[in-house]
Amino acid sequence: MNYEAFFTGHLDRLRDEGRYRVFAELERIVGAFPRARFHREGGPAKDVTVWCSNDYLAMGQHPVVLDAMQSAIGAQGSGAGGTRNISGTNTFHTALEQELAALHRKDAALIFTSGYVANETTLQTLGALLPGCELYSDAFNHASMIAGIRHSGAVRKIFRHNDLHHLEELLAAADPSTPKIVAFESVYSMDGDVAPIGDICDLAHRYGALTYLDEVHAVGMYGDRGAGVAERDDVLDKVDIVQGTLAKAFGVVGGYIASSAATVDFIRSCGSGFIFTTSLPPAIAAAAAASIRYVSSHPELRVRHQERAATLKRRLAAAGLPVMPSATHIVPVSVGDATLCKQASDLLMDRHDIYVQPINYPTVPRGTERLRLTPTPLHTDEHMAYLVSALQDVWQTLGLGRRAAAE
Amino acid sequence: MNYEAFFTGHLDRLRDEGRYRVFAELERIVGAFPRARFHREGGPAKDVTVWCSNDYLAMGQHPVVLDAMQSAIGAQGSGAGGTRNISGTNTFHTALEQELAALHRKDAALIFTSGYVANETTLQTLGALLPGCELYSDAFNHASMIAGIRHSGAVRKIFRHNDLHHLEELLAAADPSTPKIVAFESVYSMDGDVAPIGDICDLAHRYGALTYLDEVHAVGMYGDRGAGVAERDDVLDKVDIVQGTLAKAFGVVGGYIASSAATVDFIRSCGSGFIFTTSLPPAIAAAAAASIRYVSSHPELRVRHQERAATLKRRLAAAGLPVMPSATHIVPVSVGDATLCKQASDLLMDRHDIYVQPINYPTVPRGTERLRLTPTPLHTDEHMAYLVSALQDVWQTLGLGRRAAAE
Repeated sequence: MNYEAFFTGHLDRLRDEGRYRVFAELERIVGAFPRARFHREGGPAKDVTVWCSNDYLAMGQHPVVLDAMQSAIGAQGSGAGGTRNISGTNTFHTALEQELAALHRKDAALIFTSGYVANETTLQTLGALLPGCELYSDAFNHASMIAGIRHSGAVRKIFRHNDLHHLEELLAAADPSTPKIVAFESVYSMDGDVAPIGDICDLAHRYGALTYLDEVHAVGMYGDRGAGVAERDDVLDKVDIVQGTLAKAFGVVGGYIASSAATVDFIRSCGSGFIFTTSLPPAIAAAAAASIRYVSSHPELRVRHQERAATLKRRLAAAGLPVMPSATHIVPVSVGDATLCKQASDLLMDRHDIYVQPINYPTVPRGTERLRLTPTPLHTDEHMAYLVSALQDVWQTLGLGRRAAAE
Repeated sequence: MNYEAFFTGHLDRLRDEGRYRVFAELERIVGAFPRARFHREGGPAKDVTVWCSNDYLAMGQHPVVLDAMQSAIGAQGSGAGGTRNISGTNTFHTALEQELAALHRKDAALIFTSGYVANETTLQTLGALLPGCELYSDAFNHASMIAGIRHSGAVRKIFRHNDLHHLEELLAAADPSTPKIVAFESVYSMDGDVAPIGDICDLAHRYGALTYLDEVHAVGMYGDRGAGVAERDDVLDKVDIVQGTLAKAFGVVGGYIASSAATVDFIRSCGSGFIFTTSLPPAIAAAAAASIRYVSSHPELRVRHQERAATLKRRLAAAGLPVMPSATHIVPVSVGDATLCKQASDLLMDRHDIYVQPINYPTVPRGTERLRLTPTPLHTDEHMAYLVSALQDVWQTLGLGRRAAAE
């Protein structure tokens, strides 16, 4: 077989469909958030405004976080030096896991190299080792949950997105004695809608299922102390296993779960993706813990974040731009075509020095391609006014659909 | 189902078999390598000598690496702020990928959050997307390769460890037209033996297979510039895809592949574990690049490393301790029983302030439990003399087997 020809052919097809991804090379500038330097081949670098970062609260440049990270490097070095079991467990790991357990009001927590690995490893381990386990998965779940569920080999049942009736139908049809897990997210990252966490958990528990909640796009941003939507909705205790990230609102990298002591110890002891990998650098754990403490005790960050998102949605709608309904800080603007979406993104960058990555299939279903805006507490009214006028120009240039007056 | 009881029961069984893992909580001390502070519940912390770190060259505490990391944090912050596609590609990522491609003399490289994820994602993506792909896997391959191969759904054929005849038997029996990948390691981490890379690659290519080589326990440590055993053996060009880590000899965290431009672009475009995860912090990439440059241009580190390993093996053998045959820097000492192995490790720590983690099933086959020593350039003759005498005491206390005179 000609492997090179096969790979090249596949890449050509992605290009033809407008789905070939070109990464924007950024140089972040501490203190200038949301501005960054955009580097491109064959042209000079230029300053741009980033409107699509998942550093949702700009904690990735906060002095409290940077100081903690630099100081931990000075004390303990750059890497952990091993897997958690073989010389790679560090004082900063233990402290971070205690911080996370307390944040979610659980017995224990366990950190992973990423949120992806946390989801994949936990669901795979549970699905494979609970005898006869059935996994009930929301249709819009993230790729990492789908990977874990698939790789577990367990029976997989997909319920329609946020649809309690469909979930109940599936649960009611199952053998009451088999182990079950209901896996879902609180905030869905591409649409910005929110799950009815309490209702889903009550239903799951009525049928003897464990509840597994991904709060990756919510931790730090919802609830009095930033423990997520489950805290905001006062249902922390209904979530058996919560999964989160250190890489978005907390501004660092890594993922975690928090749960009962036995559950966490079980995943710690049996999860291949946890066991056979070098642990996070001590300084990453130190930075994450500092970030959590800061974000937890500064609710005004969350107030400002929500205000910014609401203001942006209002301004987009007022300008007749097709902002999609969203109950959260995520602000998608509909385009509905892969090539046009890429062109809109390119025009924003080339003509207006605004960086918003196009979101195409397979991240979202075909026909729902979009620009996904993520306003942070540091996006000012001026940034917004400039963005809206740039989008209007792009919409006009490309002849894109406007928001219907009735919406 | 009573989930808590199930988890607890499983953990109890691990305890009964002597396989329950207790993590040693360490506080690394920059400048004191291989010494570290060991923290334990219910007792005071104490200083110990670490003999089982995979920070093989102590680069995790090298000023060149720490300076690069701290300075990148000051310039660009703590986290990347997104996936590689959505605002998370950074100038330091691009520079690191160029450094890695040059190190391995390949067109291109791609970094992942870990070596585990690099292996799993690459093999899974290739196995799933190359139509009818067959994966030929060495029997001793790492858990991460096994995970990728399993999850790909491709036909899996396991050849006996480093056995060219068996591999040829399997390849000869296959349909010549189907895509094939031969996946193996250069240095096997628990035994320290080495694959005949050139011969395996020649054989694979004769049967039209791609070659995939994991050099995780070799990069930085073998070859003139530290590109691994393939460089030492002068067969870099025979390896189609090389996989490595930034977390061991380079002292940071993360994994990578290097290969042809089309292969790397294919994995970049199609690998779920690459696409849907926040990229490594810019400062991690900066630290790794600095480490690679330093290690590459300091061959005396590699000379010293090999000398230290040879000296330790000689001293252990001279003392009648059952050091297992190893062609590399990895020095396993045989115990052959899970409980005794744990007891030996505990005694070393409690009585002698020496930290060596027991290596039990499933990391190694049952009956081959061992202590795995990893001498670094910073382990002195004094450290070795003390270790050997401590091991002799432990061997006597537990009545463990000695090395046969004839060996």
